[in-house]
Amino acid sequence: MIKILVDCFGGDHSPEAPVNGALAALKANPDLYLMLTGDEVLLRKELEGKDYDRERLEIVHAPEVIGCDEKPTDVVRLKRNSSMMKAIILLRDRDDISALVSTGSTGALVTGALVRLGRIPGVIRPAFCPVLPTMDGGIVGICDSGANVEVTSAHLRQFAIMASLYMENVYGVKNPRTALLNVGKEAEKGDELRQETYGLLKKTTSVNFVGNMESRDLLSGRYDVVVADGFSGNVLVKTTEGTALELLKKIKKDIYSRTLYKLGALLMRRMFKEEKEFMNYQNYGGSVLLGTSKVVVKGHGSSKAVAVQKCIEQAYRMEQSGLSAKIETEIAKYEHYDV
Amino acid sequence: MIKILVDCFGGDHSPEAPVNGALAALKANPDLYLMLTGDEVLLRKELEGKDYDRERLEIVHAPEVIGCDEKPTDVVRLKRNSSMMKAIILLRDRDDISALVSTGSTGALVTGALVRLGRIPGVIRPAFCPVLPTMDGGIVGICDSGANVEVTSAHLRQFAIMASLYMENVYGVKNPRTALLNVGKEAEKGDELRQETYGLLKKTTSVNFVGNMESRDLLSGRYDVVVADGFSGNVLVKTTEGTALELLKKIKKDIYSRTLYKLGALLMRRMFKEEKEFMNYQNYGGSVLLGTSKVVVKGHGSSKAVAVQKCIEQAYRMEQSGLSAKIETEIAKYEHYDV
Repeated sequence: MIKILVDCFGGDHSPEAPVNGALAALKANPDLYLMLTGDEVLLRKELEGKDYDRERLEIVHAPEVIGCDEKPTDVVRLKRNSSMMKAIILLRDRDDISALVSTGSTGALVTGALVRLGRIPGVIRPAFCPVLPTMDGGIVGICDSGANVEVTSAHLRQFAIMASLYMENVYGVKNPRTALLNVGKEAEKGDELRQETYGLLKKTTSVNFVGNMESRDLLSGRYDVVVADGFSGNVLVKTTEGTALELLKKIKKDIYSRTLYKLGALLMRRMFKEEKEFMNYQNYGGSVLLGTSKVVVKGHGSSKAVAVQKCIEQAYRMEQSGLSAKIETEIAKYEHYDV
Repeated sequence: MIKILVDCFGGDHSPEAPVNGALAALKANPDLYLMLTGDEVLLRKELEGKDYDRERLEIVHAPEVIGCDEKPTDVVRLKRNSSMMKAIILLRDRDDISALVSTGSTGALVTGALVRLGRIPGVIRPAFCPVLPTMDGGIVGICDSGANVEVTSAHLRQFAIMASLYMENVYGVKNPRTALLNVGKEAEKGDELRQETYGLLKKTTSVNFVGNMESRDLLSGRYDVVVADGFSGNVLVKTTEGTALELLKKIKKDIYSRTLYKLGALLMRRMFKEEKEFMNYQNYGGSVLLGTSKVVVKGHGSSKAVAVQKCIEQAYRMEQSGLSAKIETEIAKYEHYDV
């Protein structure tokens, strides 16, 4: 039995989406046990009349609410009875619980995980690794995408190792082609950080380093892992999502401008629906935090039930694959780490 | 008469694209005089049999060729008779010449411009400012997008001032809404550089600063200027271009997968053509280098004739608007600059 905590508040569609996502995950995975954190009265109400295995679902009462404009450090310190912090503390204290899924505040989740959970031995900085679809039907993981806005080459090397293991163990990508995000392909491109990291990754045998990647090639299908500082990684991921969504929105608007187009679109309705689903990042699970002592998956704030379900199943696979132990082993191969 | 140099070698379609772009620009602008640099024999051959005003076109012989893998500093030092370096030196030495358009190596162009041309008085660092279309039919300028991978808040403030003046004077955008690229909207988001810059821009009366922008909102139409360090600005621009192109490519491929879709697409042919044109960054001119003592416009390496023409006309408008003098005046208002 794998036990996973689901933070049921903080997302845009709380608590319906987390609760319904949890029930769907429970149904699909007989080996799963879920603990929902949040206001017990509201959670009971949401569960009312629904059919699920009561032996594998538990409610943990955590009534405090986190405000939008609260500082992450204040949340961690003062809101111990919020659905998120209660979950983090439980995850830390109980050996039988493996993971946490949350659609709440990213800042509070990162800070809480770092302060309360700690890291896998040897890991300097945990980092986010969301996954995006590539145009050839594959996927690509981007690490870091926002947990660390300031980094060193030693951090970037660890991100490469962790993300490679993640893509291999959780998504079955063999020997992931790993690139460094840079402003050009040549080894000498970019700032000092990039040049230094390039040299370091060349020497890192745990990683199949294929060189620098220019951001326009992210979706080409030529890369499985892209390593970046949290600032530019964040720009990379959000620009991709934003451009795809804006472009599809524009096409939709243009279709409505002429009857002929509407007719054409009618014939292509299924295709457009598929394109939309294809670019919907909610279909690719959440952004996992790699390097914390226990598994943490951050779902998008706007996650619907199916997205939460995917996050839960992602956490499940991470735990099942023994990813943390593998990260520890691989990281340990590089002793003189913080260059 | 406005005199502009056109570097006719270095781009993917040289010398046809620069030569034909030059002839088109010449035809459309009676007040324009062009000087084409490059191998005279090849240029004469390209011009052969074409109809143009010989009084307003001149060839400057510069036979040296710049190799793909040559270091920018070597090019500047050793290739003085290349089409690019000859143009830069002429631009520096002759008061009657206003601008240079090139589709050659970005690195060599930036280095050459910095070393040989120098800067507008008061400007610490020139920066690139390409323009992208927004989904509501407007445009947005991104500065810097690759000339400076390491910057300070003082640099970023100057980029904001220069890009605002550029959008206002060359594109007619009144009081441009200027944002700082960041990982979140709140003032305290991002690294120290971003926080410091946020404070500085708040106090900069020359700029209509509207706060931080998350990269997913670039195409929303809510911003006219986005200020960024050259690294993340480069990621922002190239990710946008890459995602749009990949997505349109995917849609095209999917259309061919079913007869029904092909039929639908036939009805929407004009629309798809328009979307493609809309996202074709060649239609929005080149990336101008703001802050150099004379106007430099960098066209995309893959520029066709029409794109080169747009770059020439962009340079023409920059010169006509007296942008450099305006930048000098506005920059001078902030005396204690390098914080």
